[in-house]
Amino acid sequence: MITVSIDAMGGDHGPAVIVPGAAKSLERHPELRFIFFGQEDKVVPILERHPRLNDASKFVHCDVSVRMDDKPSQALRQGRWKSSMWKAIEAVKSGEADVCVSAGNTGALMAMSKFCLRTMADIERPAIAAIWPTLRGESIVLDVGATIGADAQQLVDFSVMGAAMARALIEVKQPTVGLLNVGVEEIKGQEEVREAGRLLRQSNLTTLDYHGFVEGDDLGQGTVDVVVAEGFSGNIALKTAEGTAKQIAEYLRAAMGRTMMARLGYLLARGAFSQLRDKMDPRKVNGGVFLGLNGIVIKSHGGTDAEGFAAAIDVGYDMVRNQLLVKIETDLKYFHGRRANGKEPALEVSEQSG
Amino acid sequence: MITVSIDAMGGDHGPAVIVPGAAKSLERHPELRFIFFGQEDKVVPILERHPRLNDASKFVHCDVSVRMDDKPSQALRQGRWKSSMWKAIEAVKSGEADVCVSAGNTGALMAMSKFCLRTMADIERPAIAAIWPTLRGESIVLDVGATIGADAQQLVDFSVMGAAMARALIEVKQPTVGLLNVGVEEIKGQEEVREAGRLLRQSNLTTLDYHGFVEGDDLGQGTVDVVVAEGFSGNIALKTAEGTAKQIAEYLRAAMGRTMMARLGYLLARGAFSQLRDKMDPRKVNGGVFLGLNGIVIKSHGGTDAEGFAAAIDVGYDMVRNQLLVKIETDLKYFHGRRANGKEPALEVSEQSG
Repeated sequence: MITVSIDAMGGDHGPAVIVPGAAKSLERHPELRFIFFGQEDKVVPILERHPRLNDASKFVHCDVSVRMDDKPSQALRQGRWKSSMWKAIEAVKSGEADVCVSAGNTGALMAMSKFCLRTMADIERPAIAAIWPTLRGESIVLDVGATIGADAQQLVDFSVMGAAMARALIEVKQPTVGLLNVGVEEIKGQEEVREAGRLLRQSNLTTLDYHGFVEGDDLGQGTVDVVVAEGFSGNIALKTAEGTAKQIAEYLRAAMGRTMMARLGYLLARGAFSQLRDKMDPRKVNGGVFLGLNGIVIKSHGGTDAEGFAAAIDVGYDMVRNQLLVKIETDLKYFHGRRANGKEPALEVSEQSG
Repeated sequence: MITVSIDAMGGDHGPAVIVPGAAKSLERHPELRFIFFGQEDKVVPILERHPRLNDASKFVHCDVSVRMDDKPSQALRQGRWKSSMWKAIEAVKSGEADVCVSAGNTGALMAMSKFCLRTMADIERPAIAAIWPTLRGESIVLDVGATIGADAQQLVDFSVMGAAMARALIEVKQPTVGLLNVGVEEIKGQEEVREAGRLLRQSNLTTLDYHGFVEGDDLGQGTVDVVVAEGFSGNIALKTAEGTAKQIAEYLRAAMGRTMMARLGYLLARGAFSQLRDKMDPRKVNGGVFLGLNGIVIKSHGGTDAEGFAAAIDVGYDMVRNQLLVKIETDLKYFHGRRANGKEPALEVSEQSG
């Protein structure tokens, strides 16, 4: 049994999308149990329309909901202790739930998650990891916007956490990790990225295989299993890729509607087009994972539909079943422990540069 | 008459692509004249196969060529004063040519251009501006990798220069300018970007219309005419968009070949597909413009074909014909002049933050 706490009021469509999404995920994973937090009159009627889900769920009423445009500070001030978002996170802290899923606003969800769950012992800053569809399958990209800027040590921590997530999600033993940069040569890029590269190369971690620098066009190719960036450039890469995919879909739609022949061709090839749509479907890879906190929180796209929200729950399910937190804690302890013992190359480097 | 100096040895394919590319551009713009710099035995035989181009061209032999994998420092050491790349840039400095076009390696071309042409009086750092295909037409995005990091004043200078280029290239009177950020609210993002936003908002420039922050997905939408970023995130955005386009083209190709019906549909719709290919064709928007130097240098993609190289020459032609340098100098003088007179809001802000 895996229990998911759900902020039923989050997202652009609220419970109308979230409850049916949970029902879909339950069909795939019958061992799931749910705790829904939200406004009773809005959530319960929809829940009652899904008897199987209703049987697998608890409901907790909350008066307050965080709005999609609330600033993080505002959300904390007005929603701490009592909003559906806060309560859903708190259920993970108390152990009632194994994972929290919300389609609410990212800034508020991160602020509340940090406040409620706190960062892990060795971690200064959490990261948001996205699942990125590639020509080879899927990669993990982090940080896509939890915090702006990261020093070399934080980039290394992101690498360790991202690799743990890759082992939990795509089940590779020693995931390849690349640092996002503007060139592949060792002399290129921001100083933090170059130093992180040196640290990773010297660390000889057994839990990841450090590949070197990767560039923006390696993301879609799936050159590595895990791509690490600080939050500003990671977020820009993510949004740029989403925007480019939308742009090309728009070109394709316009081109296919322009002439009779094109429309006929489209009809004949519609199986192929639906495969393509499938490949490009952002709902399939919905679910950003907050890494570095004492608990698992999954952020669903705010504008997604029931299928997309179900995918975010599926990600949470995989993370719990494959023991993401234990993996991260073990890897970080191993890494930071070695550093504390003075065996760790990070010390040499910081002495050199200090 | 507009004279283009050409590094005939640059790019993955050298003169075999560059000379036919120039011939194509000459067909479109008969008033062009060319000076080719390169190895005589490699360039002249190809030039002689294009009689009309040959008549419109001068050739200058150079023993040394910069290699595609030379580091900038290496290229400067070995190629200064004598390589085909240097000589092509120098022709702009001496006034023999109006613009230099090279498909050689970006780092070397920028290093030599800076060394030979120097930056404009008010400019600390040059930028590379890319032409970005959007759903609304074309936008200009800079800096896509000339230098890493930029302070607020440099981002404002990029905005002024990018707007001048937009007026030269897409011929809008008061181009809209956006700063690339991780959110559209004023409180979001890197401090440099936020301060640049404040400066632009207060400056009331008549040569550009400051729109505010834009995100990665605004690039493909064409939300603004000019998108300004520092070189690290700008480069990552550019490469990520290129990679995503390649990835989707690969999905499409695979999907269309999978079944008989899909192949038949593809045949019927091939007009539409060729339109789509056209829209996605990176050769059509080939030509990064170096901004902020005392001369115009255009960087073509190294791997492009003759059509792509011709497009890069076309960009250079437009920049000269529409007086890019005069536009930039006037705008910068206006902006920096106001600042020097103490009327400029930049001073107030730096006092506040200092």
